[in-house]
Amino acid sequence: MSGPRAIDTVFIANRGEIALRVVRACREMGLRSVVGYSVPDADTAAVRAADTAVRIGPADGRRSYLYPPALIEAALGAGAQAVHPGYGFLSEVPEFAEICAENGLVFVGPAPGVMAELGDKVGARRMMAGIGVPVLPGTDGPVAGDRAVLAEAERIGLPLIVKAAAGGGGRGMQVVTDRDSLLSGYRAARVSAREYFGDDRVYLERYLEQVRHVEVQILADGHGNVLHLGARDCSLQRRHQKLVEETPGPALPAEVLGKLAEYAVRGAQTAGYTGAGTFEFLVVGTEVAFIETNCRIQVEHPVTEMATGVDLVREQLRIAAGEPITFQQADVEPRGAAVECRVNAEDPDRGFVPSAGRLDEFVPPGGPFVRVDTHAYPGWTVTPHYDSLLAKVITWGADRDQALDRMDRALGEFRISGAGVRTTIPLLRGLLQDPRFRAGECTTSYLDGRDGAGLVAG
Amino acid sequence: MSGPRAIDTVFIANRGEIALRVVRACREMGLRSVVGYSVPDADTAAVRAADTAVRIGPADGRRSYLYPPALIEAALGAGAQAVHPGYGFLSEVPEFAEICAENGLVFVGPAPGVMAELGDKVGARRMMAGIGVPVLPGTDGPVAGDRAVLAEAERIGLPLIVKAAAGGGGRGMQVVTDRDSLLSGYRAARVSAREYFGDDRVYLERYLEQVRHVEVQILADGHGNVLHLGARDCSLQRRHQKLVEETPGPALPAEVLGKLAEYAVRGAQTAGYTGAGTFEFLVVGTEVAFIETNCRIQVEHPVTEMATGVDLVREQLRIAAGEPITFQQADVEPRGAAVECRVNAEDPDRGFVPSAGRLDEFVPPGGPFVRVDTHAYPGWTVTPHYDSLLAKVITWGADRDQALDRMDRALGEFRISGAGVRTTIPLLRGLLQDPRFRAGECTTSYLDGRDGAGLVAG
Repeated sequence: MSGPRAIDTVFIANRGEIALRVVRACREMGLRSVVGYSVPDADTAAVRAADTAVRIGPADGRRSYLYPPALIEAALGAGAQAVHPGYGFLSEVPEFAEICAENGLVFVGPAPGVMAELGDKVGARRMMAGIGVPVLPGTDGPVAGDRAVLAEAERIGLPLIVKAAAGGGGRGMQVVTDRDSLLSGYRAARVSAREYFGDDRVYLERYLEQVRHVEVQILADGHGNVLHLGARDCSLQRRHQKLVEETPGPALPAEVLGKLAEYAVRGAQTAGYTGAGTFEFLVVGTEVAFIETNCRIQVEHPVTEMATGVDLVREQLRIAAGEPITFQQADVEPRGAAVECRVNAEDPDRGFVPSAGRLDEFVPPGGPFVRVDTHAYPGWTVTPHYDSLLAKVITWGADRDQALDRMDRALGEFRISGAGVRTTIPLLRGLLQDPRFRAGECTTSYLDGRDGAGLVAG
Repeated sequence: MSGPRAIDTVFIANRGEIALRVVRACREMGLRSVVGYSVPDADTAAVRAADTAVRIGPADGRRSYLYPPALIEAALGAGAQAVHPGYGFLSEVPEFAEICAENGLVFVGPAPGVMAELGDKVGARRMMAGIGVPVLPGTDGPVAGDRAVLAEAERIGLPLIVKAAAGGGGRGMQVVTDRDSLLSGYRAARVSAREYFGDDRVYLERYLEQVRHVEVQILADGHGNVLHLGARDCSLQRRHQKLVEETPGPALPAEVLGKLAEYAVRGAQTAGYTGAGTFEFLVVGTEVAFIETNCRIQVEHPVTEMATGVDLVREQLRIAAGEPITFQQADVEPRGAAVECRVNAEDPDRGFVPSAGRLDEFVPPGGPFVRVDTHAYPGWTVTPHYDSLLAKVITWGADRDQALDRMDRALGEFRISGAGVRTTIPLLRGLLQDPRFRAGECTTSYLDGRDGAGLVAG
């Protein structure tokens, strides 16, 4: 590889399946991979697969995956020239990207200034509105103080959602449907925002029910090329966490996709974006509104990979090394339909609290058009320390029905057992058999208030 | 599904990974699957995954997988309307297809008369020559008796190959390079042919070294539609057994592919073929010669599936139910490159004899653009009773280099261990690093006489 800074070793500042995903891309590209791991992660598949693994700290993320000095020391000590942040943790923290740069490390993601502008959701909304992209009514910037919150809420109208300005991944959001719960929702959102992102700034936005969550994957290099790779429908959520993601999605007219793609590409161009990123929108019929940008690879990126044949992590690493994207927009021809289900280690009988324990049996599904990304393996002990994502199962089909039938087959094949370990597979299979989901009618509100537990078969 | 005979239950007259492959297709199509199994196969993944499993006999294939009465009884007893024969065993035996029909069972494959004509390699060669397809010099039909063999060999010239008329899968072939070994080669081929196929008729054909083995996948329905799905290069063989298969292959000019595809489609049309099938050719530069047809699904079908997005087993079952193919030739647009490696349970230090034992560890690779088809799982005991195929690993890439780099990554990730169990993974990884293979220069003779052992890394 050539580029402004030759890269032969990549440090992965993350854990779980996404760390393994990056190790795999490195291996295929002839790059050395170094995984930083916390004590309870010492034996994940990512650590076993990496060329080198370096212990960076204890279970507590604030002293390991969220602690830049430990990460930088490990990266430099292992001779890395680049840092891949994965998703979550420090992946959208501009200061971390800056610290990498100060230490001569290429951060695999957009420039810190771009991250700062787009990562601040208020700033991103303002920028997109400025180039003619519809946004939801909301505060012009972060809002603080009871009086200001009450006044802004009056102007925006109810229901509304209080969101962390630095947020992402559905964390730290509070939906407010009546005036009496406004201030408590505001305070709860601040607490969550501080806890998850170390930044308690929040803003208000009109909340729409019965909407679809649709996002556009983009790739942009340092040579002026900005491409989109189609849309993903991530409407099926539980407590604002995505549960099932699809491409192209069940109900996206070509004109709407075209509009969203154009907005996303225009946004990326305007911001000077580089790398892989996602522009998220709410969609009701043919009406759309931009909500936020994710300046990183996303959990659900594999559905786009299966439909387009583009290896997004490979492209991230190429772009970080200064290489141009080697294909054109016209070369991106999504085929068929792909769907991802997140298999979480959670107990459906106990309100979906995370479950943990040794995996006595762990046999992922295989065969045609099935992909599994997981850091788990037989004999590994599921740790309670981090999020409960145990595996991603992705299936492809000539059309949505085939992809969903195949998903049901794949989830049915997945053998996971061990004392204490329960998973969301029954919930997911229930969803796959739900007539409204099969008909493509589910919006973001579909599982509101019921956690999907009523869908669990048996 | 509609059709001449409604099918809701499919009996699978096979074992191993292909039995699981068919179970998966049935599951995805809403069909019940019934696997017939021999005693040592009672706990393969196919048996665990099927809706129903029926014991058909002991380890000895002649009393189980090769014994029609046991299979028919099991199929009828389980309420099946169709029989999928997989590959090998009875898949190319026209009499078995006839027995199925006599018992009111749909045989998933071409009509018995078509199988008889094409399955007899001499008849197939004659038919193809009759429609203007080049064939190698050889006997007009089976040859028997020392004098006739000597006379025919004189006419054809050396080197030549003695092949079973009923053969397939590289079994029962003898290459004869000098006149003195002609008669012993002839006798050895007859013995093998009788053993493998219960039919000792053999024929002679000119033997070419330094050729490529290229085959064309076709699909034909009962409504006059005959399509091809591109070519597979299966030149890398060991003792006439395919080891690595690719699509589109490293060195197939578009004009040659076009010619082969046209020959295959014309052959299928002429024969009145229905179902999935393969027309095999030898290729030297732009010269081609038809060698044989395989009237069944092939081990290497997944590379075609990965490149085209067509589920071949699904199409087989649809065609067997009388359905038309729902896409046109112009819809078949192969993308990128795919490669399959056969992971066999064999011991490289002992001349690649089959190895057997309990799989203490068995963790197949995963992640982007990797597919694994296997009937094995952790804790399963590899049986010595059947062929040594343990798993097929298939990878896809935007181009051949990416597919091969990904294969090396995937094979490197594959964790298999257990007392007594050795595999061909080191051999395969050695091949992936071999400059001649990477350059696409390997022909069918590449591993002749050395078993590939010299390529085993370490």
